[in-house]
Amino acid sequence: MDAAPIYLDHNGSTPIAAEVVEAMWPYLTEHFGNPSSITPLGRRAKAAIETARERIATLIGAQPEEITFTSGGTESNNLALRGTGPHATHRVAVTSSVEHPATAQPLALMEADGWTVHRLPVDTNGRIHADAVPEGPIGLGTLILAQNETGTIQPVAQFAERVHAAGGVIHTDAAQAVGKINVQVDELGVDLLSIAGHKLYAPKGVGALYVRRGTTIRPLLVGASQEHGLRPGTENVASIVGLGRAAELAQTLLATEPARQAILREDLWRYLAGGIPGLRRVSPTGGCLPNTLMVALPHRLGADLLDATPAIAASTGSACHAGVHTASATLLALGIEPDLALGALRLTLGRSTTREQITQAAEAILDSWMRNG
Amino acid sequence: MDAAPIYLDHNGSTPIAAEVVEAMWPYLTEHFGNPSSITPLGRRAKAAIETARERIATLIGAQPEEITFTSGGTESNNLALRGTGPHATHRVAVTSSVEHPATAQPLALMEADGWTVHRLPVDTNGRIHADAVPEGPIGLGTLILAQNETGTIQPVAQFAERVHAAGGVIHTDAAQAVGKINVQVDELGVDLLSIAGHKLYAPKGVGALYVRRGTTIRPLLVGASQEHGLRPGTENVASIVGLGRAAELAQTLLATEPARQAILREDLWRYLAGGIPGLRRVSPTGGCLPNTLMVALPHRLGADLLDATPAIAASTGSACHAGVHTASATLLALGIEPDLALGALRLTLGRSTTREQITQAAEAILDSWMRNG
Repeated sequence: MDAAPIYLDHNGSTPIAAEVVEAMWPYLTEHFGNPSSITPLGRRAKAAIETARERIATLIGAQPEEITFTSGGTESNNLALRGTGPHATHRVAVTSSVEHPATAQPLALMEADGWTVHRLPVDTNGRIHADAVPEGPIGLGTLILAQNETGTIQPVAQFAERVHAAGGVIHTDAAQAVGKINVQVDELGVDLLSIAGHKLYAPKGVGALYVRRGTTIRPLLVGASQEHGLRPGTENVASIVGLGRAAELAQTLLATEPARQAILREDLWRYLAGGIPGLRRVSPTGGCLPNTLMVALPHRLGADLLDATPAIAASTGSACHAGVHTASATLLALGIEPDLALGALRLTLGRSTTREQITQAAEAILDSWMRNG
Repeated sequence: MDAAPIYLDHNGSTPIAAEVVEAMWPYLTEHFGNPSSITPLGRRAKAAIETARERIATLIGAQPEEITFTSGGTESNNLALRGTGPHATHRVAVTSSVEHPATAQPLALMEADGWTVHRLPVDTNGRIHADAVPEGPIGLGTLILAQNETGTIQPVAQFAERVHAAGGVIHTDAAQAVGKINVQVDELGVDLLSIAGHKLYAPKGVGALYVRRGTTIRPLLVGASQEHGLRPGTENVASIVGLGRAAELAQTLLATEPARQAILREDLWRYLAGGIPGLRRVSPTGGCLPNTLMVALPHRLGADLLDATPAIAASTGSACHAGVHTASATLLALGIEPDLALGALRLTLGRSTTREQITQAAEAILDSWMRNG
């Protein structure tokens, strides 16, 4: 198998779109000024950042001044939670039991610092129920908009309504959602929303945090006055420009790509389910990212199957903790039996995924399944 | 003046070296895997990060496992100070009065949290004296290796010796020094050292923190387990690769560039001093970065002179707080009179600076001086 593997790990990382690299190029070469500098090069860099800010804002229905650039989703989540937490009137947080570590870990720190953290259970689709939000005052609610492993889309708007009514500020980690589905901050009713570049066909190492006007938040990193003082440090100009271009592209492609990928994803599911008896579909059939198919193989380690299938690049459990054969906590939270959870396979499609690739990928997986049966 | 201005703002930001962009290119295009993923693309990205880590380590005489990648100098400083601070046995910090905001602000936070912070005064060269380190136990010492505005090189080794003897951990912000002078962690005797990509002909938005083996430090951002758990978040692969290549380049060029730039810098000083009566040389003549010339114009705003001299791109005071006409706190700390401090002009040379550019820049400045005299 000498050809490049068929890439079905878009939830792990997307390629950078050609248009995005093209937009970045001038800022990696001739336009290298420091945006804080008063030189023409500096002013040009500053203007490019502001254009990117407008593009991100437009994609999610926000105002440009509500966008702060960060180094990625992890920083955005840390800033959102730990930047608003100290201002909360009640040290009570509500979240789900299927958050990404970049949300779960900041909450664990806050818990160690005296916060009460309610982690709502999920149903077999991986979804919380907003009516499970506990009674009483709440300081902070955070709910992942689309779960990175299963693709489950959470009822963020209903959750936000409950948490707001209880006095809390609302954050959503939308790293996996932005660009894959239509995400509008006002429809969701959130105060804070995290974006990660490398899930959106922009580079790794850049992200953004939406902060609704009027939300009280303090910086996590301190230093000079960049990003209205909320995120000091010389701006990652080229990558910010790339993120802006990626937002613009995503907006155009939202009209066609989700539907196209969902059709291919269903084809993939049918192929696999037809050939693997007892294959469990972990991703829900409705309310799921259009590109995401998580399945669980009976009696087989997902990692072993991937090892035996070099024709595809995919992941088992969450890419962020790969390499260790422990069942995904997310799958266990869905009520999947531990043995079956070890058979998880996450197949995530992207813009370059073709029908031919889906057929080939399915055949390769079925072939491995039968050879090592 | 239609030609691009002569760029004399290398302490604000360097261009990205062509070799660095070239090294980054594959990771902006085909090698886009997530380093945490077990796919071939993921493993390739992971291996590229480890190569970069070795290159950074080699440049500063460290071990690869002592290098943690960050989003830049500001994050490195925050992580160094606020990551080791909680482990200090004595909440006493010693620093200088001429630190960058990315050091000064974390210290101010710690001070608000109960730390005692001693800010050592500097002499007219902008240099602290290590024997001014106060008696008594110390938790943390931090001293900028080369000051961003004046270029003054601080006696970090002597400072480290005193602070270590008093029980403290030592950090240095070496963002402006690495690549411009030879920086060796063992010669300096530091436990923590910050590096910023965009001062080193690598991109903005990437940096590194050296953490000496055995130093107790906790992460500032929390999340998944990247960078030995000290810096979670999907790695900024392309920029990390660029930083590694930049380190390799810097190592080669250290043999020739510092001397070449210092000669040009002295030429520039002689031209300017010969034409501007009362011009003050703020940068010291010895113990200074070879590329840095800060001067202060009598009876003239540095900003006005730059406005009148579009042929050059330079800065006045520190690029990080540009735009506001308040005298640089660093210059005031050197004992420069406030009026004269407003006449500051920072001219910083780089690898592309030629003798011809220096002549032209000096002529342009002198011309502006005389026209607006």
